[in-house]
Amino acid sequence: MDTVKYLLSEDRMPRAWYNIQADLHQPAPPVLHPGTGQPVGPDDLAPLFPMALILQEVSTEQYIEIPEEVRSIYRQWRPSPLYRARRLEKALDTPARIYYKYEGVSPAGSHKPNTAVPQAYYNKMEGVKRLSTETGAGQWGSSLAMACAFFGLECKVFMVRVSYDQKPYRRGLIEAYGAQVTASPSSETNTGRAILAEHPDSTGSLGIAISEAVEVAATDPDTNYSLGSVLNHVLMHQTIIGLEALEQMEMAGDYPDVLVGCTGGGSNFSGLTFPFIGRKLRGEGDVRVVAVEPVACPSLTKGRYAYDFGDTGHLTPLVKMHTLGSTFVPPGIHAGGLRYHGMAPLVSHLLRQGHIEAIAVEQLDAFAAGVQFTRTEGILPAPEANHAIAAAIREALRCKEEGTSRAILFNLSGHGHFDMQAYLDYAAGKLQNYEYPAEEIAMALAGLPTVAA
Amino acid sequence: MDTVKYLLSEDRMPRAWYNIQADLHQPAPPVLHPGTGQPVGPDDLAPLFPMALILQEVSTEQYIEIPEEVRSIYRQWRPSPLYRARRLEKALDTPARIYYKYEGVSPAGSHKPNTAVPQAYYNKMEGVKRLSTETGAGQWGSSLAMACAFFGLECKVFMVRVSYDQKPYRRGLIEAYGAQVTASPSSETNTGRAILAEHPDSTGSLGIAISEAVEVAATDPDTNYSLGSVLNHVLMHQTIIGLEALEQMEMAGDYPDVLVGCTGGGSNFSGLTFPFIGRKLRGEGDVRVVAVEPVACPSLTKGRYAYDFGDTGHLTPLVKMHTLGSTFVPPGIHAGGLRYHGMAPLVSHLLRQGHIEAIAVEQLDAFAAGVQFTRTEGILPAPEANHAIAAAIREALRCKEEGTSRAILFNLSGHGHFDMQAYLDYAAGKLQNYEYPAEEIAMALAGLPTVAA
Repeated sequence: MDTVKYLLSEDRMPRAWYNIQADLHQPAPPVLHPGTGQPVGPDDLAPLFPMALILQEVSTEQYIEIPEEVRSIYRQWRPSPLYRARRLEKALDTPARIYYKYEGVSPAGSHKPNTAVPQAYYNKMEGVKRLSTETGAGQWGSSLAMACAFFGLECKVFMVRVSYDQKPYRRGLIEAYGAQVTASPSSETNTGRAILAEHPDSTGSLGIAISEAVEVAATDPDTNYSLGSVLNHVLMHQTIIGLEALEQMEMAGDYPDVLVGCTGGGSNFSGLTFPFIGRKLRGEGDVRVVAVEPVACPSLTKGRYAYDFGDTGHLTPLVKMHTLGSTFVPPGIHAGGLRYHGMAPLVSHLLRQGHIEAIAVEQLDAFAAGVQFTRTEGILPAPEANHAIAAAIREALRCKEEGTSRAILFNLSGHGHFDMQAYLDYAAGKLQNYEYPAEEIAMALAGLPTVAA
Repeated sequence: MDTVKYLLSEDRMPRAWYNIQADLHQPAPPVLHPGTGQPVGPDDLAPLFPMALILQEVSTEQYIEIPEEVRSIYRQWRPSPLYRARRLEKALDTPARIYYKYEGVSPAGSHKPNTAVPQAYYNKMEGVKRLSTETGAGQWGSSLAMACAFFGLECKVFMVRVSYDQKPYRRGLIEAYGAQVTASPSSETNTGRAILAEHPDSTGSLGIAISEAVEVAATDPDTNYSLGSVLNHVLMHQTIIGLEALEQMEMAGDYPDVLVGCTGGGSNFSGLTFPFIGRKLRGEGDVRVVAVEPVACPSLTKGRYAYDFGDTGHLTPLVKMHTLGSTFVPPGIHAGGLRYHGMAPLVSHLLRQGHIEAIAVEQLDAFAAGVQFTRTEGILPAPEANHAIAAAIREALRCKEEGTSRAILFNLSGHGHFDMQAYLDYAAGKLQNYEYPAEEIAMALAGLPTVAA
């Protein structure tokens, strides 16, 4: 029996995003102004974001309509397929039913265009000329660059130096879309210059690159800032994944017992799981939800739930989240999209409230799972997604041990075509696990800002 | 107006391949045994191919049923989408309607799995344990490796040395599928050893790699040979592209005035165009058909229509085709899939009979077209496909000049995610055009075998 595809017809593509804030039993803590310690208002965010997105950020409407201009672009690759991994099931000899939603079908190769497109759209509508952003592995940078090309916006991408040097091909894709890419830390911003003065050889981090992109947006009236994860509106744009998956599971005549997604900032995880968690919160259907992070950057499993900055340069507001400390620079694992010190406040809140659970996976286990998936399902996954696959395989093997069949659904957030060096290194035995960086995290956590919370 | 997708439901995926040999007004010349000069029979080919494929090779049935085991795998990514390139049309400000069929949605990223899967299937059915093949750019090698993984066959890939060294990431993908990759020329075959003795630094060629793969298959009873283009049955497996496109153009309420495909061995071109050419041959609908090749390897526009070997080591039968001579080593253009000295006999025959036309495109024009396509349609194309895009854009601009609207349909045979070095070089101004290699081709043509034809 082969892999089975469940594909929605275009007219069944969701017309609205789902906003989990409407269904939370208790709202997530507010975002605070670092100077005053008071909740930030729309005006505080206006230099960075268009008003439409600021309103989405704080909205408690259950559904927010997707503009037709955005749907029109989504339709190029959406609805994305949901597969039952029959060949993987057979290889594992498991009674589990393994499903995956595949977001690598977007032109940029991941789920990121789901939010890049509406972000570019709303900025265009409000007369913005240019967007600045950061990128680590490059999935986000290439997606925003593509969206900007579609809407005729300029795009400026601060790319973490180590990725800029090690992943010239991802940079090539961003540039092919017409965006300008700068290695971060750079000499173009105060933040960058200060860091380079102290550490001329700095390899950069997402936290630093965010600071640079925010600084550019804050100081140029024609430029807005755009973030690929963490924020509420970003997570909401991704819920089209889970809304489609709900319909596709119905097509399959099944409902997930376990949902699995990898977590860096939280966007692909939230995209798949929030619509299902919403049902759970409303008492409409139970499901276990597992967030999977790397052992080397374990914000949910080892971080502190506290107010912290989203960036290293401390230009962002303070958000309550699971954090490893904004000065923590994660080890150089190949899943660059999971190398972030913090976590989306909504994901952190759901963990705190007991609605989801979290585990950490070693790099080598993730790649072993990715290679097994490649050989059975044919799709070579992004290193980030390998973490989800490793956890899904664990769940499936537990089913085998227990002699029970459960439905496991995970998000295959993107392909790994731009991550082949990692696969070559893995095949050559050159890839290693990283120990939990306990000391570095303790030091970074010691520097957490003090706020009344 | 955005890019429009025309997607067939799964139940409308074709149940049979189309065999153009049934509709030819005059049959293509037979394949000859190089020793006797007589047409080869099934027994001559039996050491290399399973009988099912040998029978397909010579069949004149109009349709050949696709086995359910193959359809079951096709369904993972088929029917593939057909798009109307509205954003590209707008950028060109052309009245033309530009359509493209996108084959990069397969897990291996090109049209090649359309034939890799049935080839692996028929070999598996006849008890073969291992397949050997060659690959240049790597699209074919990765596709056959994937198909072999699905059917539990071993796979041995001779990869042209220059690609092996310059494209480690494509090799990484082939190896991730579990295949064994060897740089060609290698010391594993008589052909390889002979060439290395004379040219220790040989960068290899498709012609040499074919010889090595054929030699391995001919000398090992458990191993068969598998070819990714040129042969009749390979081209026929690809016709699922055009059969779907026929239905999708009907969905669009349109019919192509011009069909465009790039040609190396001829498989993606034939896949799209044969079902349309069949209609033309049967008097059911006219269409101009344009084959696009690189100036650096111009078999259709500059080659001789003659009997020649398919490989450099002269282990294959003789086929009548447009050839540049089997010893011609094409310049190192980035469209590795178009670097072949010959051309599919059926494509050559159709050109000879006046049913198709051929043009040659410069490398820089191809990449300029590819980048424009990336920025408008979001998909970064393979360098091979860039040749088709360049020709389609030319046709669209001609419409603009003439103030007429024509429907142009081209095959976007694959994405360029493994060809980013070429895009980086192009962006950096390091890519060059190659002059037509007149002298080398004249020398190679002087060595054509003499046969009574």
